[in-house]
Amino acid sequence: MTEPPLLLIPGPVQTHPRVKATMAQDIAPWDNDTRTRYAALRERLRAIAGGIEGEHVCLPLQGCGHFIVEAALRTFVAPGTKVLIPNNGNYGTRMIRLAREAGRVAVAIEIPEGELATAQMVEKALAEDPSIGTVAVVHSETSTSVINPVEEIAAAVRAAGRRLIVDAVSAFGAIPFDLGAHPETDAIVFSSNKCLEAMPGIGVAVARVDRLEACRGNAGSWSLDLSDLLHHARSYGWGSIRFTPPIQSLAALEVALELFEAEGGQPARLARYTENARILYDGLAALGLTPWVPRDRQGPIIVTMHQPPDQAFALQPFVDALKRRGFLISNFSTTSVPTFRVGAIGHLFPDDMRRATAAIADTLEEMGVRHLARAPLAA
Amino acid sequence: MTEPPLLLIPGPVQTHPRVKATMAQDIAPWDNDTRTRYAALRERLRAIAGGIEGEHVCLPLQGCGHFIVEAALRTFVAPGTKVLIPNNGNYGTRMIRLAREAGRVAVAIEIPEGELATAQMVEKALAEDPSIGTVAVVHSETSTSVINPVEEIAAAVRAAGRRLIVDAVSAFGAIPFDLGAHPETDAIVFSSNKCLEAMPGIGVAVARVDRLEACRGNAGSWSLDLSDLLHHARSYGWGSIRFTPPIQSLAALEVALELFEAEGGQPARLARYTENARILYDGLAALGLTPWVPRDRQGPIIVTMHQPPDQAFALQPFVDALKRRGFLISNFSTTSVPTFRVGAIGHLFPDDMRRATAAIADTLEEMGVRHLARAPLAA
Ligand SMILES: Cc1ncc(COP(=O)(O)O)c(C=O)c1O
Ligand SMILES: Cc1ncc(COP(=O)(O)O)c(C=O)c1O
Repeated sequence: MTEPPLLLIPGPVQTHPRVKATMAQDIAPWDNDTRTRYAALRERLRAIAGGIEGEHVCLPLQGCGHFIVEAALRTFVAPGTKVLIPNNGNYGTRMIRLAREAGRVAVAIEIPEGELATAQMVEKALAEDPSIGTVAVVHSETSTSVINPVEEIAAAVRAAGRRLIVDAVSAFGAIPFDLGAHPETDAIVFSSNKCLEAMPGIGVAVARVDRLEACRGNAGSWSLDLSDLLHHARSYGWGSIRFTPPIQSLAALEVALELFEAEGGQPARLARYTENARILYDGLAALGLTPWVPRDRQGPIIVTMHQPPDQAFALQPFVDALKRRGFLISNFSTTSVPTFRVGAIGHLFPDDMRRATAAIADTLEEMGVRHLARAPLAA
Repeated sequence: MTEPPLLLIPGPVQTHPRVKATMAQDIAPWDNDTRTRYAALRERLRAIAGGIEGEHVCLPLQGCGHFIVEAALRTFVAPGTKVLIPNNGNYGTRMIRLAREAGRVAVAIEIPEGELATAQMVEKALAEDPSIGTVAVVHSETSTSVINPVEEIAAAVRAAGRRLIVDAVSAFGAIPFDLGAHPETDAIVFSSNKCLEAMPGIGVAVARVDRLEACRGNAGSWSLDLSDLLHHARSYGWGSIRFTPPIQSLAALEVALELFEAEGGQPARLARYTENARILYDGLAALGLTPWVPRDRQGPIIVTMHQPPDQAFALQPFVDALKRRGFLISNFSTTSVPTFRVGAIGHLFPDDMRRATAAIADTLEEMGVRHLARAPLAA
């Protein structure tokens, strides 16, 4: 057996060997020992989000990022009412679809892919339509690498007296957002398998208690009702998981949080990912490839490059050849023009990024790809 | 470190060491190798359900049993329309709640706990209310050990020209239901972590293609829309998983299905569980404990006993003492009177059941529980 390739994808990410090893056990979810550990895990996640004891609660939900985003929309936006969603990429589009199919009125701010959602746009849209109660924003737009200025958007929402939901699925743990300083925010949602470097299977909301209470009855889905998760915890204890969870992923998340804290928490993780992304961005640009976003909009989560406009290039053979060299990247792009993406998150270090960049150079040469730069961007 | 206790709970169950070992790896869900394996896994599950190629499809969904039950109800029962649900236990009650909160009209047939849902009851209810389009029934009522006669109920539904959904969460893989012989059935739903002896994190529906097509637009939830799962597979290939899955649990399920087939499939599994449950039932009854259901209603999945009516007995200390002896059972009961439950499913064998029975005897003696038999049942 050869070594499996390193995952350079935007999640599920490469994990620490201890995180992986934790998966290989049978665990009873409602055993008393498990309950104690689960209750503690919730507290730790609340604290990482900056949530205030008594004011915020951590609500893990079986499933994935989409489920926890839908759960937050269903819970905090009443059926038939409006939610404003700035849309500057694939995950913004997905949030709009989740809201609409759930019977909420999604008011989209359409922003060119790769550009930022700004506080001014939100301010204007809220001023124009007083019937919009909630804004939902993607923190890290994983499709384009752009980090939206959520702090500024939150300030605009607060000033306008509205509520905020933050989709931090690919940001949480690396890009700061301090829930304790954000009374306008109903919930921040994320998943286990991105910057927390744990295994997939869990979505998490850290949410305001008062809003969960006020919004009881909104969800129109028992499965995706965050208010009911609060009610369940109050009825059966904070160690009780509602419905059968992927309990191995929760145990792995415990270990991942130990490693997270040992590394120095969010600032350390941000620093490592920023360095990872810088090495990729600079290294790939130095090869002659054209980045999808200019340097000042390049986030630390993932680096997106235009596919080389050369007949010799095709994405799947490129991905396959790179995999033979030990690096697995996404075999599909989430932008409207052909790109490829290299993840900078997970249990990966600057040296991995240097080796990945070298492997990309070798692969392009092997494929006979000579024309790397895309024609200069139109705007 | 002592050996972890054997799980004698009704899921997540004790798994084979190879199933556990498979969990300890990073896997990219959309890698081409993963896609090929995922597409094959779907075919295998369809075949186990007796689904017919081209007529039925296998639709795995992130999450748990509740989610896949809700997804089936949302997809096959239009909002505001009626679904008939025979209710003879906790999981019937839960199905009613899932339907109601999703805005469907759940018409309940209330049946005393522990008794059977019968075809006659369903026939009568359907004859009385022609506006009921769908019946949803729990196959194995995990709360009471009772197996509902789903074959007969299905025949009544077919005769009345209505549609059926089967919640086979704790039955699938052990209690037969041949989808190919059941054109009235829209979907059978189950989860990875019960009689298939895999890890939690996945709900599965095997559903009719024509009905998924006819029901497009019903769900009112992108996350829980089975029709969209079909659409996704057609758009992106049968190897493409919609949204990030607990991919380790899917890999473990592959291994679990190999073991399932090597054992002799459903008949072999039913035989082993039946023997497991018989040993528990007879052994515990021989100690003087009172079974919750008479022998003719005792299913092979779980054995439920009345708690001894003795001051010296309390459930949590009993569970703790049994755990010290290497057997972990549920520390809560799902019946309306105090019971305890011992699971007969999972990678467990008759000898484990004999040892568990002996450990229960020792534990009761150690606790000084003398009065084991409950007063004769009122009816
Ligand atoms: C910003 C963002 N939101 C939502 C999601 C959806 O998460 P999942 O794939 O776990 O459903 C993702 C996944 O990459 C994401 O990056
Ligand atoms: C018959 C039945 N239906 C539904 C469920 C719900 O499954 P989960 O706990 O995976 O959500 C269970 C769980 O035991 C069950 O036994």
